[in-house]
Amino acid sequence: AMDGAPPPTSPTGLSAYVAVSQLLGLTLLATTGAWLGRYRGGVAWHSPLQFNAHPLCMVLGMVFLQGDALLVYRVFRHEAKRSTKALHALLHGLALAIALVGIIAVFESHRTKGIPDMYSLHSWCGMATFVLYLLQWFLGCGFFLFPGASFSLRGWYKPQHIFFGITLFILSIASCLLGITEMLLFKISDSYSHFVPEGILANTLGVLLVAFGLVVGYVLTREEWKRPPLAEELALSMDFKTLTEGESPGG
Amino acid sequence: AMDGAPPPTSPTGLSAYVAVSQLLGLTLLATTGAWLGRYRGGVAWHSPLQFNAHPLCMVLGMVFLQGDALLVYRVFRHEAKRSTKALHALLHGLALAIALVGIIAVFESHRTKGIPDMYSLHSWCGMATFVLYLLQWFLGCGFFLFPGASFSLRGWYKPQHIFFGITLFILSIASCLLGITEMLLFKISDSYSHFVPEGILANTLGVLLVAFGLVVGYVLTREEWKRPPLAEELALSMDFKTLTEGESPGG
Repeated sequence: AMDGAPPPTSPTGLSAYVAVSQLLGLTLLATTGAWLGRYRGGVAWHSPLQFNAHPLCMVLGMVFLQGDALLVYRVFRHEAKRSTKALHALLHGLALAIALVGIIAVFESHRTKGIPDMYSLHSWCGMATFVLYLLQWFLGCGFFLFPGASFSLRGWYKPQHIFFGITLFILSIASCLLGITEMLLFKISDSYSHFVPEGILANTLGVLLVAFGLVVGYVLTREEWKRPPLAEELALSMDFKTLTEGESPGG
Repeated sequence: AMDGAPPPTSPTGLSAYVAVSQLLGLTLLATTGAWLGRYRGGVAWHSPLQFNAHPLCMVLGMVFLQGDALLVYRVFRHEAKRSTKALHALLHGLALAIALVGIIAVFESHRTKGIPDMYSLHSWCGMATFVLYLLQWFLGCGFFLFPGASFSLRGWYKPQHIFFGITLFILSIASCLLGITEMLLFKISDSYSHFVPEGILANTLGVLLVAFGLVVGYVLTREEWKRPPLAEELALSMDFKTLTEGESPGG
C-alpha cells in the first residue's frame, strides 16, 4: 500500500465471484472424492486402485490449481508484481507436479492390467494439453521470471501467454469431461442409461467442472477487473519508453 | 468505403487466420462425412441410419456455422454495422435450425430403438448448450436488432453477449468431443484400443474440432483485430454522449 493512502480495495463483484469459484473448486474436489470413495473403492498406489489416483490428481492439478494460478493477478491485484508472478509460477508448477503423478498412475495401471496406452480421444487431448502446459510453463519462466528477456519481447509474448493459458485451462476441463465419459462407459455401461446414482454423481461432477471454468473465465475476461499497474510500474515503463523512444510493445 | 479514400484493408495476418479457419471448418465437415459414410453406413432419415444425422447436423450447425457467425464482425470489418449484425443473427439462426434437426434425429432414433434419453454427460452438456444458445439468440435479437433497447442497455449487455457467445461456442465443441467418445465406445469398444482406422479417424475429427475452436478463438480475442467503429458510428455515439452527459455505457 502507498504511504498514507487508504488501503486499496477490490472492485465490487470481483470478491464475490472469486469466492464462488473457490466454493465450486472445493465442491469439485469433494465430488471427485465421493465418486472414487463411494463407488470406485477409493484410491491407493500399489494396488488395483492405482488408476483412481488419475482422476483425483488431474482434477486437483489441471483444474483446481491451474484455475487458481490464473486468478492470482485478480486476487492479489495490489501486491508487487514480482511476488504475484512468483506465486503464479509456483501454483502452475505444483499443478504440473500433481498432474505428472496422475499420468504415472494411468500408465502404471495400464501396464499392470495389460491395457494399451494412448488410443482414445481422451488420452490424445489430455496428453497434448499436459505437454503444451509444461511447455507454456517453461516459456513463461523464460520470458517473465528470468531477467534475460527484453521489455519489448515480454510485451510481444504476454498476449500469447494469456491466450494459450486460458486455452490450456479450457482444454484441461474438456479432457476431464472426456475422462468422466470414458470411465462411466467402461465401468457402468449396462446401468448408466437407467439413471443410477453413480452416473448422476459423475455427470454432476462434469457440470461442476464446466461451472468452475465458466466462473474463472468470467473473472479473467472482465476488462474492469484486470490488474491495474502500480504507480511505480507505470513510472518504470514510462522511463523505459522515453529511453528507447519506442512505441508500446506489440503495438 | 469513404469518398475518395483508398479502399480499407484488413490487418496483416487476419485474412490468413480466417482462411485457415475455413479450411479447418471444411475439413471438419469432410471428416465427419467420411466417418459416417465409410464406417457407419451413411445418413438417411426414415431408417436405422437416422441417428447419423445427429453428428452431421451438430458439427455443421453448432460448430462450423456458429464459428463463422462469430467471425462475421472480423471478416466484414468495413461494412455497415446494421448489415453485419443481420448476417450474424442469420448465421446463428441457421445454425439453430440445423442443430434442431440434429436433436430431433437422436430423439426419434432413441424412440425407435427403445434407448432412454438424456442420461449421459454428453446429453446434459449438449442440451444445456443448445437451450442456452437459443436463449442467447433471442436476447441478442431483443437487445441489438429490435429498436426498443436503449444505447446504455446495449452497452451493458454487449460484453455479456460476447463472453457467453464464446463460452457457448466452446461448450458446443466440448459436447461434440463427448459425443465422439460415446459413439466410439458404443460402436467399437472391442477394437478401439487396437488403433483401428475408425478410431483414429474419429479421434482426428476431435483434434480438428479443437483446432477450429482454437483458430476462431484466436481471431476473436486479438485486440488489434477487433472491428474498428466506422466514422459515422463514432460521430453518432459522441452525439449521444453529449446529449445524455453520461459516461461510456457499462463504465
